[in-house]
Amino acid sequence: MKILILGGDGYLGWPTSMDLAAKGHDVVSVDNYSRRTIAMQTSSEALINMPNLEERAKLFKDLSGKEIKVSIGDLRDFSFIENLIKDNAPDAVIHYAEQPSAPYSLRGYEEAHFTLKNNLEVTHNLIWAVLKNKPDCHIVKLGTMGEYGCPNIDIEEGWIEIDHKGRKDKFLFPRAAGSLYHTTKVLDTDLLWFYVRTYNLRVTDLMQGPVYGLSTKETDLDERLLPNFHYDDIFGTVVNRFLVQAVAGVPLTVYGKGGQVRGYLNLKDTLQCIDLALNNPAEKRELKIYNQLTETFSVNELADKVKQAGEKIGINVKIKSIPNPRKEPEEHYYNPIHTGLQKLGLDPHYMTLERLAEMMKVVVKHKDRIDSSKIFPRVKWS
Amino acid sequence: MKILILGGDGYLGWPTSMDLAAKGHDVVSVDNYSRRTIAMQTSSEALINMPNLEERAKLFKDLSGKEIKVSIGDLRDFSFIENLIKDNAPDAVIHYAEQPSAPYSLRGYEEAHFTLKNNLEVTHNLIWAVLKNKPDCHIVKLGTMGEYGCPNIDIEEGWIEIDHKGRKDKFLFPRAAGSLYHTTKVLDTDLLWFYVRTYNLRVTDLMQGPVYGLSTKETDLDERLLPNFHYDDIFGTVVNRFLVQAVAGVPLTVYGKGGQVRGYLNLKDTLQCIDLALNNPAEKRELKIYNQLTETFSVNELADKVKQAGEKIGINVKIKSIPNPRKEPEEHYYNPIHTGLQKLGLDPHYMTLERLAEMMKVVVKHKDRIDSSKIFPRVKWS
Repeated sequence: MKILILGGDGYLGWPTSMDLAAKGHDVVSVDNYSRRTIAMQTSSEALINMPNLEERAKLFKDLSGKEIKVSIGDLRDFSFIENLIKDNAPDAVIHYAEQPSAPYSLRGYEEAHFTLKNNLEVTHNLIWAVLKNKPDCHIVKLGTMGEYGCPNIDIEEGWIEIDHKGRKDKFLFPRAAGSLYHTTKVLDTDLLWFYVRTYNLRVTDLMQGPVYGLSTKETDLDERLLPNFHYDDIFGTVVNRFLVQAVAGVPLTVYGKGGQVRGYLNLKDTLQCIDLALNNPAEKRELKIYNQLTETFSVNELADKVKQAGEKIGINVKIKSIPNPRKEPEEHYYNPIHTGLQKLGLDPHYMTLERLAEMMKVVVKHKDRIDSSKIFPRVKWS
Repeated sequence: MKILILGGDGYLGWPTSMDLAAKGHDVVSVDNYSRRTIAMQTSSEALINMPNLEERAKLFKDLSGKEIKVSIGDLRDFSFIENLIKDNAPDAVIHYAEQPSAPYSLRGYEEAHFTLKNNLEVTHNLIWAVLKNKPDCHIVKLGTMGEYGCPNIDIEEGWIEIDHKGRKDKFLFPRAAGSLYHTTKVLDTDLLWFYVRTYNLRVTDLMQGPVYGLSTKETDLDERLLPNFHYDDIFGTVVNRFLVQAVAGVPLTVYGKGGQVRGYLNLKDTLQCIDLALNNPAEKRELKIYNQLTETFSVNELADKVKQAGEKIGINVKIKSIPNPRKEPEEHYYNPIHTGLQKLGLDPHYMTLERLAEMMKVVVKHKDRIDSSKIFPRVKWS
């Protein structure tokens, strides 16, 4: 397949680019280094200094013989994205190209407005570039489990049939996200669903939980091919923060009561899910939605796992609750259905102590680069 | 009350400005003439040439002694809207300031992208200007019944309690709009609800059906105070188009089967609803939603009413079905609940033949300005 990967320099975009190129697809990886720019501006650089996208693609070609074409530009510029679609006539586009940080999106007006505009405009430009130039192209969009929030009913996979006063209809599962960033993903879903049902687009929207992991078949080739590992409060997920805190010898910072439950998955499983989505494409006028996670944990459970993983490699880990900078329920019902991708063949890599310990060993190698001030919350929710 | 009216030059904005000034409120009416500009660009000028907002405000002052302050500027410019809120410290803001045409929003990429950006950015700028400068200000936002689409279950007022697998929760009523313009209103609702529940905003969101009518206490003072009357396919609603077609002696153009049902209300009732919303404000962290309509009709029923109204004043009216340029169900279930505003005291002005005939008489006076080519659909849905 001819595949465009938008946001190809990202934590998921880069491993996805390598994985699909290794599988023999014709891959074009696109980025404008927006995340790297924001990371610099907010002192949130990744733990390990990574070569830029063109350098990484060159290195990957030298090591594997597989080519990843790179295109650098801003997808908010319609002529740029339109030419990408025209010139490449892709069978599929994987759309990761959004401002991905919840805390950043809540820092203030400028950051909020940028997140709203950037994420919506890129999605809308992609829709129109495809409609006008390759209308049968399959769009695989990265959504987030965060779109749903924490409802008191089971979270179905994207859709729900509602039985109301003796009549029935099927709707998008109601969404109520916990940050402005996550809300832009809700708006993306609304927008995609409008264009799917009105203009016959083909879209798969992946409601993904937080991903952890560094190791894939391709990243294992050379440390310079690792995905970005952010551990700060802006771009780092809770798993990364805990791993770095463990290595730095500071207590793991549990926000509030720690009963916040989310669905997690390993980076290797993201790659599997993308592959399954590409090979089971949505039909015209179909919006396929999967809940992309393999297991759920509370923050307290995660902290315990990291503590135990640390003990395995001789690191003594402490856990400490700190005031929650976020507005979120700290104890709640959470039961997301996630059978869709499993039925297609997803074979999960669960969060074992061994996997966490392996990640921690990578962190240990770069311990001298840890800046403890970045691990603590710098952004409060409202 | 000190009240800002955003989109004060519009079909609703202008009568609202006069009504609230007449009631003794301190009114600032804001516009950038975006609708007038688009009307020129698409050859969709109103039937009657209207003075601009500053001229109308001056005329209204001369006739009534009541002042409407006018401010001209683009609300996508944050410093402009921030200064408006800072300088005026309003008790309430009525937000009508959006690109309001569904067909325009579907004309092509440029129009779609403008509609998305304009509508979302203005709403988001308003949210932040209020949060930063007058956080207890009550935002009264114009939504649309079109946000819901035509579901096969009763349309509750904004919210629905879902009973699912033995558990319950309350959600925004699921939305699935029929045009990109209407979809931007869905996105507005999502955005407002995020900021309401996270930042304690006070918002009332009015899900309004198509409004018809020219006469209010203030517009009756002088013909130059009438609201804009658009009859074209871009800005004209179905009622206006039918009235003008009747007067022009061309058959009323029913799109397809004509079984499309919507909820309508008279312009006088919009003014009542705004007044009720202002006097029953949302609390902090509350998003009040009302379904703002007084009666429902199918397109066929509307055509029959206009035909009968024509007969009353000696106009012979023909009705003709034409291919539907829109993608929409032409026969469907439609049962919107709309008791909220009635419970607050809304006293409806129903669509009588007399009211339609009165509107038709105004059209007759300007018959020489009718351009028949504008009455027929120029924009197809996808």
